[in-house]
Amino acid sequence: MKLYTYFRSSAAYRVRIALNLKGIPYDAVPVHLLRNGGEQLGDAYRAVNPAALLPALEDDGNVIGQSLAIMEYLEETHPQTPLLPATPAERARVRELALTVAADTHPLGNLRVLKYLTGTIGVTEDIKLGWQQHWLRTGLSGLESLLANDAHTGRYSHGDTPTLADCCLVPQVFGAQRFGVDMTPYPTIMRIHAACNELPAFQQAHPSRQPDAE
Amino acid sequence: MKLYTYFRSSAAYRVRIALNLKGIPYDAVPVHLLRNGGEQLGDAYRAVNPAALLPALEDDGNVIGQSLAIMEYLEETHPQTPLLPATPAERARVRELALTVAADTHPLGNLRVLKYLTGTIGVTEDIKLGWQQHWLRTGLSGLESLLANDAHTGRYSHGDTPTLADCCLVPQVFGAQRFGVDMTPYPTIMRIHAACNELPAFQQAHPSRQPDAE
Repeated sequence: MKLYTYFRSSAAYRVRIALNLKGIPYDAVPVHLLRNGGEQLGDAYRAVNPAALLPALEDDGNVIGQSLAIMEYLEETHPQTPLLPATPAERARVRELALTVAADTHPLGNLRVLKYLTGTIGVTEDIKLGWQQHWLRTGLSGLESLLANDAHTGRYSHGDTPTLADCCLVPQVFGAQRFGVDMTPYPTIMRIHAACNELPAFQQAHPSRQPDAE
Repeated sequence: MKLYTYFRSSAAYRVRIALNLKGIPYDAVPVHLLRNGGEQLGDAYRAVNPAALLPALEDDGNVIGQSLAIMEYLEETHPQTPLLPATPAERARVRELALTVAADTHPLGNLRVLKYLTGTIGVTEDIKLGWQQHWLRTGLSGLESLLANDAHTGRYSHGDTPTLADCCLVPQVFGAQRFGVDMTPYPTIMRIHAACNELPAFQQAHPSRQPDAE
């Protein structure tokens, strides 16, 4: 398998964790999100993924975009070390937690969004940082409230083995810390984050450990 | 089943289509996104869904948030009229198309985002409309490019029966048309949109046909 990735991309980080948890070997193909106005927007990468977004997984001649679609694919093709629980209701909870990050939190702090804010609208760096922190706090509050008062929450987001929800949670915390968000209002998230980061699969997926890290 | 919904919510619209396609009867519980500063933010709704977002599905005492998590749940518990194809690679494609709408397009034009732009940052109505149209065009271009040159695209987004991808596509087109986006650059999307809207399941899920329509 080939993973088109960028060390600091939150969505690529998720998929790296899932691949590591399942013990699937892969070749990392770095695509630089900043160099040359963004290599993901160039013709070479568009030929791989017409949506021009990272990550993308190439397997068996097929290219799949969207981190959650990739992780569901890995779950179906490599059921060992399952990242989704067994019952439909529990699977729904894990997907809900994952989407709370992937659809409600992350998209608002994306690089292209920040570029539009400063470039097209012309806001100051302070207003940009305020925006980032506001949506990070809003998303993390939602996630914390879903995790904090639910008996299904265990050592990890759902029970005592890592799931897709944890693959999303850890990169989002990394992003929030990078932008100076005070994490004290999110004790459950931070407890799960610490538990995940004791595992080699999470450690090895960290941006600083990637071949294209800067 | 009980669906917490708002007639104009794009995410609730997706779930209504999926419920109708599967022929699952449900009770609609309207939650008004604007009234009283947003009923979804009140204590009554937070007791249902702590993430304070629409839609939410209540089934068998369980509450599930996030439209894609709800639709996957419906797919697993009501396999009749499948909304995902049979092979992992095809299922991945459908999920990728669905997420292109749900994670990359829709979150940027959400009501709460627009409120932050005008309220907190203080941009003009023109700049707000420019923002909405920019992200709608960006998302629709990505979706069009994934649909246009792929032999898997049929009468619908994937093959000749509706899938989760179509449940996301149709509400997104509704949103884009509402905000005056020129749809001529997206002929594949518009052809699929027209095919979907010939089906009663899509027609009956339309915002104008909901009990809380204004």
